[in-house]
Amino acid sequence: MSSTAGQVIRCKAAVAWEAGKPLVIEEVEVAPPQKMEVRLKILFTSLCHTDVYFWEAKGQNPVFPRILGHEAGGIVESIGEGVTDLQPGDHVLPVFTGECKECAHCKSEESNMCDLLRINTDRGVMIHDEKSRFSINGKPIYHFVGTSTFSEYTVTHVGCVAKINPLAPLEKVCILSCGISTGLGATLNVAKPKKGSSVAVFGLGAVGLAAAEGARIAGASRIIGVDVNSSRFEHAKKFGVTEFVNPKECKKPVQEVIAEMTDGGVDRSVECTGNIDAMISAFECVHDGWGVAVLVGVPHKDAVFKTHPVNLLNERTLKGTFFGNYKPRSDLPSVVEKYMNKELELEKFITHEVPFAEINKAFDYMLKGEGLRCIIRMD
Amino acid sequence: MSSTAGQVIRCKAAVAWEAGKPLVIEEVEVAPPQKMEVRLKILFTSLCHTDVYFWEAKGQNPVFPRILGHEAGGIVESIGEGVTDLQPGDHVLPVFTGECKECAHCKSEESNMCDLLRINTDRGVMIHDEKSRFSINGKPIYHFVGTSTFSEYTVTHVGCVAKINPLAPLEKVCILSCGISTGLGATLNVAKPKKGSSVAVFGLGAVGLAAAEGARIAGASRIIGVDVNSSRFEHAKKFGVTEFVNPKECKKPVQEVIAEMTDGGVDRSVECTGNIDAMISAFECVHDGWGVAVLVGVPHKDAVFKTHPVNLLNERTLKGTFFGNYKPRSDLPSVVEKYMNKELELEKFITHEVPFAEINKAFDYMLKGEGLRCIIRMD
Ligand SMILES: NC(=O)c1ccc[n+]([C@@H]2O[C@H](COP(=O)([O-])OP(=O)(O)OC[C@H]3O[C@@H](n4cnc5c(N)ncnc54)[C@H](O)[C@@H]3O)[C@@H](O)[C@H]2O)c1
Ligand SMILES: NC(=O)c1ccc[n+]([C@@H]2O[C@H](COP(=O)([O-])OP(=O)(O)OC[C@H]3O[C@@H](n4cnc5c(N)ncnc54)[C@H](O)[C@@H]3O)[C@@H](O)[C@H]2O)c1
Ligand SMILES: [Zn+2]
Ligand SMILES: [Zn+2]
Ligand SMILES: [Zn+2]
Ligand SMILES: [Zn+2]
Repeated sequence: MSSTAGQVIRCKAAVAWEAGKPLVIEEVEVAPPQKMEVRLKILFTSLCHTDVYFWEAKGQNPVFPRILGHEAGGIVESIGEGVTDLQPGDHVLPVFTGECKECAHCKSEESNMCDLLRINTDRGVMIHDEKSRFSINGKPIYHFVGTSTFSEYTVTHVGCVAKINPLAPLEKVCILSCGISTGLGATLNVAKPKKGSSVAVFGLGAVGLAAAEGARIAGASRIIGVDVNSSRFEHAKKFGVTEFVNPKECKKPVQEVIAEMTDGGVDRSVECTGNIDAMISAFECVHDGWGVAVLVGVPHKDAVFKTHPVNLLNERTLKGTFFGNYKPRSDLPSVVEKYMNKELELEKFITHEVPFAEINKAFDYMLKGEGLRCIIRMD
Repeated sequence: MSSTAGQVIRCKAAVAWEAGKPLVIEEVEVAPPQKMEVRLKILFTSLCHTDVYFWEAKGQNPVFPRILGHEAGGIVESIGEGVTDLQPGDHVLPVFTGECKECAHCKSEESNMCDLLRINTDRGVMIHDEKSRFSINGKPIYHFVGTSTFSEYTVTHVGCVAKINPLAPLEKVCILSCGISTGLGATLNVAKPKKGSSVAVFGLGAVGLAAAEGARIAGASRIIGVDVNSSRFEHAKKFGVTEFVNPKECKKPVQEVIAEMTDGGVDRSVECTGNIDAMISAFECVHDGWGVAVLVGVPHKDAVFKTHPVNLLNERTLKGTFFGNYKPRSDLPSVVEKYMNKELELEKFITHEVPFAEINKAFDYMLKGEGLRCIIRMD
């Protein structure tokens, strides 16, 4: 039992007071974990676009003041009532979506969209009592997607925490909490390319490159990167991307260009842009008879996916995925093992590193489109 | 070797001389099979909507005079050069699509869309020499989808012929050449419902009822029939349909009604209408996390499938199928066996029977929407 168990912890957290304003490192109080909750000491966290979207709060529901952050690695400090799966000292990855292990989704072999703990970006409080565990001078500071990892300590539902191999370096595997697993799982769990097959990846950001990494691991013989930003290609080569197409430089729809390059279409495609035109192209560029397209990107709320039904009747499959179809608690430990046994290369995703005090630099890098993942060291 | 091998056969065929005009039983000459072709003696044939569409030729390319017909059972009369898989006397089902066993589709485990022999409704001649094997006084009569079974003898490509168990009654299994296998395979090969699951079937024509029959065979616990024609329900009960919804009688979109009936959506849906709204509803009525929707119906050429991409991202799968994903030569024999071992019930699809001389009655029944399949006895 740690000496802080059951007590309020005072620690540093980066608070977003207002939309778009630099985070401020504040001293916050972190209440002890309640029923089915755990309190984590965060050691490393990284920045993902989703943090930036909710910080900018353009078109998103503004919930402030808030502690953002959802990609992280840490250690369990203490556990609340009813928690049996985790112990203080366990090495863990918090995750923005959860796995209660009891709902129809958790019991299904196929779904990871837990009814109880599925991502909710509007909620700023814990499920148990609809209260925040963070405060400054008694005034609540809101949570973010159940993780709020931009804090030395945070409280999460036990269902949103994956217990991993304690030998895994948290400063690397912390990036598996969100985008990297999303792209990797989209390929490995959903598109499932066979060895020797061709895969198109639309969007070469962190998620798309993780999808390409999945294709490399699966033994794809051709990985065609598609991005409207040609500067992405050079870096993408490290991820096994063998060919590149920029739709803006094509005289025909990119799906036709890809069909010509591949004698009728790729075996698999994975869309990681959030752009609706890319989604449609990603679907229409797969081969008839056996092609499978997987959508990953989060679209604009008014976007409409349109295609001629004959594209489907010609035996193409269209699927979407959420968090790469990984169940956070059941499956993430095995993704960490893929890194441990050198199947999965994580180092190439990590392009920057800053101390916690300089967390706003991570936002600057992302806003400038520099690099892929910036690791934020908590001490 | 039959005495007619290598010779022109004179026999009766029902010729469509003009769009929409009653077929005329004529004496035709049927030339011997050429390279990779076989000549079949047709014993039983049945009528499918597709024959009617191409006979009406509304919006279809008119190809006349033509011998229609593509659901049939027969016996090999003689074989052309290069044919090694079939012998005179073999019991067979001709099929409107083929399996060359050599193209990428035939070699793929997943596809049945043979590059060489995929359905071509415009072609009225044989592939080998672009000529017809049918004539009257030397004037060619065109073929239909490579089968032309409304004739006592016909010539087909060897790749469009499934050799089946000679003990199977051809007057029953002849209906497996097209629509029934299409619906059955859509469920068994593509939707693949698990035992105890819920399945919605849109459209309760022959194809939809075959899809329901597939769901019954798979052990679905709920089979929800959806049709704009409520009179279809009574008959559908025989096919295991347990509940019925008429979208025209619903105050909300039918996908919402089905979601309410099933605590979030059905596990699987199979669309067998050809109507684009039904296709969209069939997709949107499957459960998030694990739902799979399969499109079977042939849509209008200008139809556009539209949905919000979030419906996909919530882990729904959308697929289309052609001939129920059955490879004609490799897979149809096992469908016949399903009938032989009483797993599959075919009798309930057969609602009428006429002698060949009265083939136009079969057209009347279909045009009036009476019954499902009319067997036409060749003698
Ligand atoms: N980042 C995550 O953790 C995460 C998790 C789940 C889902 N997603 C979603 O996945 C998508 C990708 O995330 P990311 O972090 O890699 O984003 P990113 O912005 O770093 O990368 C997206 C890439 O797509 C390219 N692109 C945009 N429109 C395009 C088009 N029409 N055709 C081809 N390329 C196009 C952009 O140039 C960019 O390189 C986003 O929609 C995101 O919401 C992200
Ligand atoms: N018949 C075949 O051999 C075959 C083979 C492959 C594909 N198909 C396609 O499968 C589809 C069905 O074939 P069928 O022979 O069973 O046709 P059918 O006309 O006998 O049955 C179609 C049924 O769908 C219903 N329907 C129409 N619009 C609907 C809507 N919006 N919502 C719900 N129900 C609706 C009709 O009332 C009818 O009962 C067709 O599109 C056909 O082209 C048929
Ligand atoms: Zn759950
Ligand atoms: Zn993220
Ligand atoms: Zn073929
Ligand atoms: Zn047919």
